[in-house]
Amino acid sequence: MSVQVGVIMGSKSDYETMEHTCAVLEELGVSYEKKVISAHRTPDLMFRYAEEAVERGLKVIIAGAGGAAHLPGMVAAKTLLPVIGVPVQSKALNGLDSLLSIVQMPAGIPVATVAIGRAGAVNAGLLAAQIIGAFEPEVQRMVELRREAIQSEVLESSETL
Amino acid sequence: MSVQVGVIMGSKSDYETMEHTCAVLEELGVSYEKKVISAHRTPDLMFRYAEEAVERGLKVIIAGAGGAAHLPGMVAAKTLLPVIGVPVQSKALNGLDSLLSIVQMPAGIPVATVAIGRAGAVNAGLLAAQIIGAFEPEVQRMVELRREAIQSEVLESSETL
Amino acid sequence: MSVQVGVIMGSKSDYETMEHTCAVLEELGVSYEKKVISAHRTPDLMFRYAEEAVERGLKVIIAGAGGAAHLPGMVAAKTLLPVIGVPVQSKALNGLDSLLSIVQMPAGIPVATVAIGRAGAVNAGLLAAQIIGAFEPEVQRMVELRREAIQSEVLESSETL
Amino acid sequence: MSVQVGVIMGSKSDYETMEHTCAVLEELGVSYEKKVISAHRTPDLMFRYAEEAVERGLKVIIAGAGGAAHLPGMVAAKTLLPVIGVPVQSKALNGLDSLLSIVQMPAGIPVATVAIGRAGAVNAGLLAAQIIGAFEPEVQRMVELRREAIQSEVLESSETL
Amino acid sequence: MSVQVGVIMGSKSDYETMEHTCAVLEELGVSYEKKVISAHRTPDLMFRYAEEAVERGLKVIIAGAGGAAHLPGMVAAKTLLPVIGVPVQSKALNGLDSLLSIVQMPAGIPVATVAIGRAGAVNAGLLAAQIIGAFEPEVQRMVELRREAIQSEVLESSETL
Amino acid sequence: MSVQVGVIMGSKSDYETMEHTCAVLEELGVSYEKKVISAHRTPDLMFRYAEEAVERGLKVIIAGAGGAAHLPGMVAAKTLLPVIGVPVQSKALNGLDSLLSIVQMPAGIPVATVAIGRAGAVNAGLLAAQIIGAFEPEVQRMVELRREAIQSEVLESSETL
Amino acid sequence: MSVQVGVIMGSKSDYETMEHTCAVLEELGVSYEKKVISAHRTPDLMFRYAEEAVERGLKVIIAGAGGAAHLPGMVAAKTLLPVIGVPVQSKALNGLDSLLSIVQMPAGIPVATVAIGRAGAVNAGLLAAQIIGAFEPEVQRMVELRREAIQSEVLESSETL
Amino acid sequence: MSVQVGVIMGSKSDYETMEHTCAVLEELGVSYEKKVISAHRTPDLMFRYAEEAVERGLKVIIAGAGGAAHLPGMVAAKTLLPVIGVPVQSKALNGLDSLLSIVQMPAGIPVATVAIGRAGAVNAGLLAAQIIGAFEPEVQRMVELRREAIQSEVLESSETL
Repeated sequence: MSVQVGVIMGSKSDYETMEHTCAVLEELGVSYEKKVISAHRTPDLMFRYAEEAVERGLKVIIAGAGGAAHLPGMVAAKTLLPVIGVPVQSKALNGLDSLLSIVQMPAGIPVATVAIGRAGAVNAGLLAAQIIGAFEPEVQRMVELRREAIQSEVLESSETL
Repeated sequence: MSVQVGVIMGSKSDYETMEHTCAVLEELGVSYEKKVISAHRTPDLMFRYAEEAVERGLKVIIAGAGGAAHLPGMVAAKTLLPVIGVPVQSKALNGLDSLLSIVQMPAGIPVATVAIGRAGAVNAGLLAAQIIGAFEPEVQRMVELRREAIQSEVLESSETL
Repeated sequence: MSVQVGVIMGSKSDYETMEHTCAVLEELGVSYEKKVISAHRTPDLMFRYAEEAVERGLKVIIAGAGGAAHLPGMVAAKTLLPVIGVPVQSKALNGLDSLLSIVQMPAGIPVATVAIGRAGAVNAGLLAAQIIGAFEPEVQRMVELRREAIQSEVLESSETL
Repeated sequence: MSVQVGVIMGSKSDYETMEHTCAVLEELGVSYEKKVISAHRTPDLMFRYAEEAVERGLKVIIAGAGGAAHLPGMVAAKTLLPVIGVPVQSKALNGLDSLLSIVQMPAGIPVATVAIGRAGAVNAGLLAAQIIGAFEPEVQRMVELRREAIQSEVLESSETL
Repeated sequence: MSVQVGVIMGSKSDYETMEHTCAVLEELGVSYEKKVISAHRTPDLMFRYAEEAVERGLKVIIAGAGGAAHLPGMVAAKTLLPVIGVPVQSKALNGLDSLLSIVQMPAGIPVATVAIGRAGAVNAGLLAAQIIGAFEPEVQRMVELRREAIQSEVLESSETL
Repeated sequence: MSVQVGVIMGSKSDYETMEHTCAVLEELGVSYEKKVISAHRTPDLMFRYAEEAVERGLKVIIAGAGGAAHLPGMVAAKTLLPVIGVPVQSKALNGLDSLLSIVQMPAGIPVATVAIGRAGAVNAGLLAAQIIGAFEPEVQRMVELRREAIQSEVLESSETL
Repeated sequence: MSVQVGVIMGSKSDYETMEHTCAVLEELGVSYEKKVISAHRTPDLMFRYAEEAVERGLKVIIAGAGGAAHLPGMVAAKTLLPVIGVPVQSKALNGLDSLLSIVQMPAGIPVATVAIGRAGAVNAGLLAAQIIGAFEPEVQRMVELRREAIQSEVLESSETL
Repeated sequence: MSVQVGVIMGSKSDYETMEHTCAVLEELGVSYEKKVISAHRTPDLMFRYAEEAVERGLKVIIAGAGGAAHLPGMVAAKTLLPVIGVPVQSKALNGLDSLLSIVQMPAGIPVATVAIGRAGAVNAGLLAAQIIGAFEPEVQRMVELRREAIQSEVLESSETL
């Protein structure tokens, strides 16, 4: 069976954030691949990756990038798959630039944007699983189990305040 | 066959924005329902709607809200379906409050956030179609045709500058 | 006599902030309880807590949360008690997201919002005491004594510049 | 019986916003008075008003102001009553300056801040009623009736989309 | 002789801004061409345009775009020519999103960013002329004459206050 | 001869910033006094200080405060002297709240606002000296000498790059 | 007797804002002159104006500018007089750019910054009068009379709510 | 042959950022000079430097500055050469003030603005090289080689995730 989720990021340093996406996908048993693909430094590779994604059997692409973060939007422009964008926290503007560069897409090409930084990276993995899970009940069930687990964690943590 | 997409919004005035979501879904032949459901004024209805969404056969929920926009995130907390959040442009802060209230979800519960206002509403419809299209080729084909059409529009508009 | 103030927070890590609320309530002799209740991870618990607050005899609920901070607003939607919201300082946006998610409530459901972080947590405790104090003179008197004490501190600190 | 809520504002032009506070209080049957009191142009009057509020029998003060909005915080510094601050939408910065000037109070003196502009003004009236209602059941009942009414409005509006 | 400056924009509606660029180039006698090329809707055309720019003899590319404005940065990634980015004023965020999406490029691929909106569009034309003028004295002379003219305008306007 | 400049600050912790004001005044030989006076914790003292400033012979008041920084504006409301406001860098919002709370004064009561933090504190001292120097040539001469010194520093630092 | 206050502005369109400065100075009987002097379009004139200000007998310079507003800071760099900066409301960013460009001066060269737009322009005139009034009692008396008048206006407006 | 690029900065502390500009120019073999020139502390030197730049044979000036960053814009006002502005990351506002002070130039005098901080400094060097490279093929070739090298780095880094 082919890989279901492509996790790409603009530079290797983004992996500090995006490894949380990979960890969630692994935890939920969703198959994925991970690559560094830069919109600005490897534009042709980016286009090729996006163009081939459907026929390679991917169902969702997750793209993390920071600053003038063009990777998610440009990949979205070149594929018909849903693209999830993770705004990586940038140095000067704390990821506000990343967020606006990813979320404020013009009508026609959507990017499913999640929160800035680690929380967003975790949620990108979950969102991909929820998308697949809407069509594959066993994946949905995995998400459900994870939710039940974190719910228990909350309840227990309340006891220890 | 059951409805595939639920389009909900926090108040009737949000329909000025969310009708663009409905128009896109109609254009692409994706079945949908539309409702006013307020996180703050009808919280129980919101929870019931979210809880029943999977069994009712919905595949995606699109929720539009403005200001302290809690609708998308709270619906997401109560369903395993992917939830798309549309930040409606607010009066004082132009939708920056809506955007942050929707996108900055904590790790555990994602909301697929799109742009503020009309562009985001259009893209919410497209994103829902792309999600479904990843599993139903005829929907993906409809998205593809729409892209080809807007591409032609761009090329033609360039001639008329 | 029943507990007067409920102090709740979205995750255990928020207690670093919210312990300042508890410390003030203790100092002023206002009875309180403290719990971790997450809007997104334990939504049903949150609704139950809010629904039962009036009959349990609470007078004020204080809710601390960060990021897309939905806890104060959603609790407010489910209780007739005054709800005080404390925006916990978030990592990427320093609590601006928390603040806007809490304060920008739509007409109909208010949240009494205080400052971001520790100062807000202290003030949430004081505000709860002032609310109760408007109806119970001995609590108001405790607030007055605390004010006189900090006034003296200011005057003394001026001597040591 | 004495007036329960004092509604004050920094200039007469703020009444365009603050009349919504008055309308809510009237609707709920909460007695109130309304005055223009400027922190910067009538500072002594402001102090006198705040100092006398407790003995005059007020339970809550609602203060609306815009720009460098010092009225709510300074009144709060001079009274033990709970003070609700309404950030009036300012011309250049859309009320972001008003909001931060009101909400970011230092530890020691809280202001219960609500949303910028009209929604905040409505909610200030509701919050005052909820504060009083926590101690006077008939006021709480009035708030409850209002909530039921707006809930019905939402449900009906959904039918007419 | 070949055209020296390529003026491109993300959609026809951006021409309301970018016509000021064209007007300045015309005024200064710098040859240019103008086209609608969308990063998201015509990505392949964008890449082709950028790739061929050097061999077609262009010296500078000016790209105007709004929102998640990827056009200037993606063109810059595909050409060795200097690219000037004009942030078009967006509806919700007034061009702050356009500005950050254009200016916050990662190390490796610069975009010469100018002011948001009309002023930026005028200056993009002037900057292109100054770049060419650094190597072609007659163009530099044209810029100088224009400066002298606006200097006179300032002096005269002072008389009429 | 009476003291010419009053340097006040909202809390002792602000002295870390305001000591730079004092250092400049000392360096320039301008007489000053320094005090902790809190708008919120010692409001009556603040009013008394402001009211007596003219008759005590002060020429300028410099007030530093952070967060919802009401000290400079409220002092300005109670004195006819020029008041310089120093926005102290706050924890969550980095002084943006301090800046807006100080600078956005309504028409009628100005505060001469300087930069956030240390640079602003230095400049508050210089501005006070320049104000006095406009009427006392020997003070103006001291400012001039300081400028010549820092100019030399710049020139020398350039040699060591 | 020489003119005491120089009112300058970056372009004639700024006069819509700066005429409020002139009106206040006239009202208070403070002599002034007004000129359009652009930092960017007439830099040499700006330097000459600033250099000659002391010897011409000016006591205060008021400079209004918008966007990347360099006029106040550059004039301040070239004179020992106190310089008051008025941030003119800009089109895209509503004067936030003007404000930051004027107020965030580095240590060494202060600009006394007032509020964005009309309120700031009024206050610039008042601040200049208060500066002069600290040394010329009759000017201070004029400011006092104006304050008493606006205080009466507030009191009267309260009657008409 | 004369120096082609002038790299100037507002204070010696900016060299921590601007050394990245110098490193890139060195790497690409573009001749440059570097100097500390302060708009506010050495205004006459700044004007002289800008005035003489064309006749000294410079082709591009790169100016780095932070806070109310007037250096790039004022140099641009005094030369016909293209000026590249580097917003140095400031302490309180993280360079947002620097960015707006540099990029929001009024129509008439452009500054080619790059990203805040280190990335911008690197890109300023590259942009200068691309400007020169548009007219000198061997410089363009050097830029091309550098791009190929960083492209390889990206590809290799992807292998090591």
